[in-house]
Amino acid sequence: MYQDRHIAVVGAGLVGSGWAIVFARGGHEVCVFDENERIRASLRDTVAAQLRDLASHGLVDDVDSILARIHVCDTLADAVTDAFYVQESVLEREDVKKNISQAIAEHLAADAVVGSSTSGIPGSAFTADTPSRERYLVVHPVNPPYLVPVVELVPAPWTSTESVERAMALMNEVGQAPVLVRREIEGFILNRLQGVLLREAWALFEEGYASAEDIDKTVRDGLGLRWSFMGPFETIDLNAPGGIRDYAERLGPLYHSIAASRTELQPWSTDLIARAEEARRDVLPADELAVRRGWRDRRLMALAAHKAKQAAGGQPDESH
Amino acid sequence: MYQDRHIAVVGAGLVGSGWAIVFARGGHEVCVFDENERIRASLRDTVAAQLRDLASHGLVDDVDSILARIHVCDTLADAVTDAFYVQESVLEREDVKKNISQAIAEHLAADAVVGSSTSGIPGSAFTADTPSRERYLVVHPVNPPYLVPVVELVPAPWTSTESVERAMALMNEVGQAPVLVRREIEGFILNRLQGVLLREAWALFEEGYASAEDIDKTVRDGLGLRWSFMGPFETIDLNAPGGIRDYAERLGPLYHSIAASRTELQPWSTDLIARAEEARRDVLPADELAVRRGWRDRRLMALAAHKAKQAAGGQPDESH
Repeated sequence: MYQDRHIAVVGAGLVGSGWAIVFARGGHEVCVFDENERIRASLRDTVAAQLRDLASHGLVDDVDSILARIHVCDTLADAVTDAFYVQESVLEREDVKKNISQAIAEHLAADAVVGSSTSGIPGSAFTADTPSRERYLVVHPVNPPYLVPVVELVPAPWTSTESVERAMALMNEVGQAPVLVRREIEGFILNRLQGVLLREAWALFEEGYASAEDIDKTVRDGLGLRWSFMGPFETIDLNAPGGIRDYAERLGPLYHSIAASRTELQPWSTDLIARAEEARRDVLPADELAVRRGWRDRRLMALAAHKAKQAAGGQPDESH
Repeated sequence: MYQDRHIAVVGAGLVGSGWAIVFARGGHEVCVFDENERIRASLRDTVAAQLRDLASHGLVDDVDSILARIHVCDTLADAVTDAFYVQESVLEREDVKKNISQAIAEHLAADAVVGSSTSGIPGSAFTADTPSRERYLVVHPVNPPYLVPVVELVPAPWTSTESVERAMALMNEVGQAPVLVRREIEGFILNRLQGVLLREAWALFEEGYASAEDIDKTVRDGLGLRWSFMGPFETIDLNAPGGIRDYAERLGPLYHSIAASRTELQPWSTDLIARAEEARRDVLPADELAVRRGWRDRRLMALAAHKAKQAAGGQPDESH
């Protein structure tokens, strides 16, 4: 779509530069703007390094041609003017999001759609007074978006259906996995699902039922395996002879009872956080965090390559 | 350990036959007993087919020698006598578990430990009156145990520390990933973590925030990727510049607020279950469930091979 027009990326920190890779990898010309001059100056080097990493895992073919599609702009106007889509990834603060949304509107083409990468602020909190607010919505990626394909699309009450559909089509076209959050809700879908699991994990740790390391093991050597290629509904659908209804009738009462045992609500205490910190530092000293993040990113790349191979390998339709 | 003695597998349905593969793959002689004569008669064929599948994914080397270590016994006494470890995987019903635990005790060597595969019944509900009850505990696998390594060890109040340690050592030795649930709790760790995520997923679906398919996508193309090689604690530890304490201080309030928005407790209604069933049948017709289960198992095998390769590939210590 819009083959002669480009995509604008506004804000080029970790998230924005990741988006630049996603769109350029998908064949689009990308104009990137960041207020910070140093970020603008180093952007192409940053992106080139990430692309070489991806290439070494077989995840992109031609680093140079992808890089050639990424252009750094010196002004917001240069980046946004004539773009058919704008991805905004500035600082996660309501006033900052509000200001940039209004500034983008000044240069926005009459048919362009604007997606915000916000992970937690609903669009209605910062686009209410934005001109053309019907073309603004949340398009929330997971970091880094070129390795983790899910993207949450969350319309504000005034976002038009057409804008949602165009953002959805673009995300599908560039190989992401867009999901529609039909109306605003705190934490959207992904962080709500992560949040409830974390809450139970912290509670089990706090009450001494298991070590943090054993709770991690339960996920990485158990629950997380299926969830890396099937969602929770498909998992339980395949886990009872008669499918999901059969499963829900058998195990619903157990899960209800588990939920009923966790009615007490309290924030994670300073003491609890200190204990979790201590448990993690026993396993991974603070000065090894950065190295371990590199390991995580390589594992994500290897997993992405593995999943792509599986999807291509004559398996039944991956989209099930 | 106990190199001249065997392991007994009691109950040889899906779970028990999976355990036979785990122990025989780990180099142990395994004596299998099931009350059902047809299961006894077909066991070696069932296991041979599973082993050939594993071999085709590079997950076992020598099908014949593994198979040669699996022996079918015609009586419980034959299987249990002289075994140094007994894995019980009979029907998931309290009275059945109680009876078999007592029957096993009649033939149990003086130093043998008995693990029950129960996924939900605490050991204290069925071993209170069992002779040698200090040597009984829950050793709960995920199906199939030869592909999903996590095993939950749950001592009853009377289980001796030594018995737990011996079961733990055996599980590590045969390549499983044992976790210690320090005292009994409904759903143990794995099903509690799965349960809270399912509860939120069902609620989001019920309230129309997202389709079941989009909720699945959020996990399989998002959350589930990291969780297939890191647990939830390691994930958040690496997800904030200053580690888990930094993360908890930044995001704790959001997760608390999400939890506070789900205080109302209701079982999954018949209507809700029917809607979920309908949503799943739109994606996967009932007559394709069995084929899709085959797909799932092949994906699990491919993922197991992928993870083994990653662990062996000069990456930093996998046990972190």
